[in-house]
Amino acid sequence: MSGTPLTQDAFDQLFLQAHTHNAWQNKPVADELLHHLYGSLRMAPTSMNSNPARIVFVKSREAKEKLIPALMEGNRAKTMAAPVTAIIGHDTRFYDMLPKLFPPIPNARDMFAGNAALADITAFRNGTLQGAYLILAARALGLDCGPMSGFDNVAVDQLFFAGTSIKSNFICSIGYGDPKGIYPRNPRLDFAEACSIA
Amino acid sequence: MSGTPLTQDAFDQLFLQAHTHNAWQNKPVADELLHHLYGSLRMAPTSMNSNPARIVFVKSREAKEKLIPALMEGNRAKTMAAPVTAIIGHDTRFYDMLPKLFPPIPNARDMFAGNAALADITAFRNGTLQGAYLILAARALGLDCGPMSGFDNVAVDQLFFAGTSIKSNFICSIGYGDPKGIYPRNPRLDFAEACSIA
Repeated sequence: MSGTPLTQDAFDQLFLQAHTHNAWQNKPVADELLHHLYGSLRMAPTSMNSNPARIVFVKSREAKEKLIPALMEGNRAKTMAAPVTAIIGHDTRFYDMLPKLFPPIPNARDMFAGNAALADITAFRNGTLQGAYLILAARALGLDCGPMSGFDNVAVDQLFFAGTSIKSNFICSIGYGDPKGIYPRNPRLDFAEACSIA
Repeated sequence: MSGTPLTQDAFDQLFLQAHTHNAWQNKPVADELLHHLYGSLRMAPTSMNSNPARIVFVKSREAKEKLIPALMEGNRAKTMAAPVTAIIGHDTRFYDMLPKLFPPIPNARDMFAGNAALADITAFRNGTLQGAYLILAARALGLDCGPMSGFDNVAVDQLFFAGTSIKSNFICSIGYGDPKGIYPRNPRLDFAEACSIA
């Protein structure tokens, strides 16, 4: 596959014409599509194949009503209206899965098990990478996304991850967006403001 | 665009058949392609459009020789051989750009300027999202990636970001991969191991 770019339409769908969505069509997202979504995003790279992301797809009214009070006021109504809101978290004890996930280094677990700072930053960095993969895999599937970090992480951890080593990172509504809810595009940084070639 | 998935070929190129690369064809990556890469990745979402990622595309022999000693032994030779190695960092003072980047909230800068913990986690989370966008945008452009976090972040910060508020996050070689350098695929977590639907 080396060397062949995707079509302009694909770039538009993934990056150039895609927008964060704030309003949603009344069209459900099948569980099967969420399985496809995870089946795609999980193949993208993480450090030592650590795969620390743990995702709750909040879909039922009951689970939505549990989540909503932990969100910033401005994020509540639109989250209630979304077909699915994914809570992207990461397991700070991801290393317990390394014997399965990273057979090339049989003692990989030990690098992290005794070093909480390394485990935490590895979980956060790679769980965040996987959250970005989720956004782009959803767009690739024809879904729209509304990612948010305006919520009370501690509250969400208590509500959804109590008694586990999983910490919430950000949340992302998923569905078929209503273009009427799109905000105007904000400017981006120019290449020279953000990048250099050395 | 809502509702239409990309082709199977596109899913293969982005996610399913793509691999982390460790060996590189002797084929350069034009600066123009790096501009296209940034022009795509910068459109994907960040919190409050904060766009904290700052990227050095290390391309010259001189810059490569500066970078190499900061890498783990096992990452040195393959990084030297790569046409480009991107250092993905994030500006912990990203908020100074918010008056340009996020006009809807004119005082957005103040939310971060007096709260270093919030600024740091926002820079790291969103800079990491942008690093993942870089990987998938590179694959969309027909490039291959070799992301790595096995290096001395403090040393790289001193070498490439001295006197700035930019911190290195991870690095990623970019080029046209030589399939002979691909390692066997490691297992991924099943849906039920990493996800739930609530």
